[in-house]
Formats: sequence, C-alpha cells, structure tokens
Amino acid sequence: MVKHYRKEDKVSYTLGTTITIELLKNHPELVEMVYYHSQLKDVEPVAALCRAHGIDLVQSDKPFNILSQKENCFVIGVFRKSVFTLDSTKNHVLLVNPSNAGNLGTILRSCAGFGVEDVAIITPAVDIYDPKTVRSSMGALFNLRFHCYATLEEYLAEVGERAMYPFMLKAKKTLKEVEAKYPCTLIFGNEATGLPDRYLEVGEPVIIRHSNRIDSLNLPIAASIALFQFFSEK
Amino acid sequence: MVKHYRKEDKVSYTLGTTITIELLKNHPELVEMVYYHSQLKDVEPVAALCRAHGIDLVQSDKPFNILSQKENCFVIGVFRKSVFTLDSTKNHVLLVNPSNAGNLGTILRSCAGFGVEDVAIITPAVDIYDPKTVRSSMGALFNLRFHCYATLEEYLAEVGERAMYPFMLKAKKTLKEVEAKYPCTLIFGNEATGLPDRYLEVGEPVIIRHSNRIDSLNLPIAASIALFQFFSEK
Repeated sequence: MVKHYRKEDKVSYTLGTTITIELLKNHPELVEMVYYHSQLKDVEPVAALCRAHGIDLVQSDKPFNILSQKENCFVIGVFRKSVFTLDSTKNHVLLVNPSNAGNLGTILRSCAGFGVEDVAIITPAVDIYDPKTVRSSMGALFNLRFHCYATLEEYLAEVGERAMYPFMLKAKKTLKEVEAKYPCTLIFGNEATGLPDRYLEVGEPVIIRHSNRIDSLNLPIAASIALFQFFSEK
Repeated sequence: MVKHYRKEDKVSYTLGTTITIELLKNHPELVEMVYYHSQLKDVEPVAALCRAHGIDLVQSDKPFNILSQKENCFVIGVFRKSVFTLDSTKNHVLLVNPSNAGNLGTILRSCAGFGVEDVAIITPAVDIYDPKTVRSSMGALFNLRFHCYATLEEYLAEVGERAMYPFMLKAKKTLKEVEAKYPCTLIFGNEATGLPDRYLEVGEPVIIRHSNRIDSLNLPIAASIALFQFFSEK
C-alpha cells in the first residue's frame, strides 16, 4: 500500500494523469505500479501503457486520499528513485540550498527546455523527489541526471575545473555582457538569501539587471532567463 | 469587518507583513485599515507607517481566520482598488485569458523588474486583485497600470496602432532573431491553450525556441524571458 511520502523512501509518486503517462512513456522500467481513481473517466490511455510494459494497474481510491490534496488527480504512478552520476563534459546547473519544491520543479522544466541535462544540488535542499517537485517539473525530472553534494568543493572534486557563472545581485558583469564559455555551470542560490558572498570569488559572477522597482526576480524566472541566454539556439 | 474576497468588492487585501509594508510605503492613500495578529512579534514597523499616514491599525485575529490559510501571515492591509488608463506611448504586456493567480502575480513582478509599467488583460481572466495575485506579485502590482478589455479590438481601439509581438509555438521567427521596435506590446496566451491561431496574423509572431523534451515553457517563465530580451538594458 502507498503511504505518505518521505524523503528516505525508495519510491516516489506521480500525481496526475498527464505526468504518469509521461513517466510510463519515458521510463516504464522505473514504474512499480499505477493506481486509478473510480472517478477517472477514461482509463484506456493509461491501461494500454501498463499492458504494454507489464505494469500492474489497480483501481482504488485509498491512495488518492493518502497522497493527493488536489481534486483533479485521478491517476498515481509509483516509481523507484534513481541514482545518477553527472556528465562532466556537459553544461550543468548548480542549485545551492533551493527550498521550494514548486520552484525546483519549474527550474528542472526549464533545464530540460534549454538542453541542460545535468543538475547538481548543494544540501540542505528541498527533496528533488518530493511529489510536488515531480509534478511541477511536468515530468522533466525524468529526462535529467541530478546529484546532491554537501559542499561546492565536493561537487568540484567530482566534475573538475570548468567555467562557472554564479548569479548574484552583487555581481558587476551583466548577463547581456558576459561571454559564455562551454562546458559551464550556472549557479543559483536560495530563494530568500541568494548565494553567499564567497561565490563572488567563484568563476565569473553575473547579474541579471532589473529595475529598482523590485527587490529581486523570482528564482525560477532568474534561472530560466540565464538558461535561455546561455543555451538557447538562435 | 473583512469578509471572504470576491471580485466585485471595492477593496482587496495584502496578506503578509512584507507586502503590507510595501503597500503602506508606496500607496498609503489606498489603504483603508491594517490588521495585525496577536502573535505578531514586532508591530512597530507597521505601526510607524500607519501613524505617519493616519491609518487605523487594529489587533484582531478574526480577519486572519477569514482571509488567510497561510500560517505565517500576521499582517493584513485593506486597500481600495484603482482604475487605470494605460499609457499608449509606453511598452505594454498583453495577457490573453490568464487563468492562474500565482502566475499572473509572477508576471507582474517581472514586468516591474524589466520596466514595463502597463499591463492589458483580455477577459475572461483571473482577477488581478485576487489576494493571491497581489501576494505573488510581491507588491509589484502597486507599481503598475493595468486595464481589462473584452477583445483585442477594444484594446487596439484604445491604444492605437503599435508594434505587436504575439508569443506562439507556431511562430517562425525566434526571440533571438526578432528585431524589436518600440513602443511595442508583447502578447501571451492562456497557460493551457496558448494564443488562438488568429494571433498569427497580428504583428510579428515570435517563438522562444526550446528542446522537444518539454511541451512548452511555464507561462511566467516564457513571459519573463521575453521581457528580459526586449527590455533589459545591457
């Protein structure tokens, strides 16, 4: 039976039809089983995928009472978590202490959208497998490699020297001025506190210039603008 | 007494200390009164602003039970809604049928961040004065002019001919290719459906190119990338 999700669990959940179909299409090998609610109107798209991959499909309303507060959730996928090694020849995004599951998911969606497939996270941080993160990533999570590190040094020891661009309000160089070198790592801080000052000494700090009418840009917005500028083709 | 917010009300609410202080600093003339919760630790920053502007400040927990589901909301501002006329000599953002209050607020924050002060909305749309929109705008709402229109034609009749850039997945010109003319209007569609095909005939349609690993970018992300590209200084 399913239970309330906890970070130490070996499985997590896709809450919703679209995202569960995304999971079944891209990573059927990770799926343990799928539940659907008695009020689901058309089970066939999900049922066909489960049949094709030999995955158990169960009609039961109980998992929905346990796992989902959303009224419009009628399908739940149970999937095994994976462990990844980042590809040190590729571009990365490094998130330092991200604290909000919805924001993290939105950033993952933008990473997939602009071709960054490797995401590093410095802990403490929100759990990337939190069902809220999975949901707000719209399934982009299943197309990425990610790994958590205790410190920046631990990350660097693993991936080696590379061009690094910490995004900071105290930086002098603006995003439109900076010259991009590849492969590189774009670095973003916590929602409330940004990056610590010591990141001013890391690589080439960058600021996304904005008016003084706001204190800062929303974190997924800032990260996505940077991803667009660095990685979007013409 | 306060009551559950409804669109037809003449007042709306700032839910939270930071955003209420933002309101008191920028638009004290709109504030009818301020409530604070008995558990607020330091009322003085709010109290000082209320004193300075002759605004009533009431300690009462009842409004919080009625208006806020968030546990960390200890100050509520009650403010009068305003009616604006857009400035037709300035750059605009036009949102067609936006449906999510949080997304709308995030877009308003990015508008203020990149110097766009005029926002047009085509109805049906989420209420720009919904306390959730106000909150997610982080107060940016108070630095903007906005106006609702029933149709694109009604908007154009008011602001006149201008450069227009509808953002659409079916567009051919990419954001990095397009030549910006000012003053202009950037146009964005609904979260789920995007802009209707007829916008392909409006001005110069633009696509923010992204990989095929995602179906689309999140709406506030797309709008903010476009705002950055069109309006951020070097």
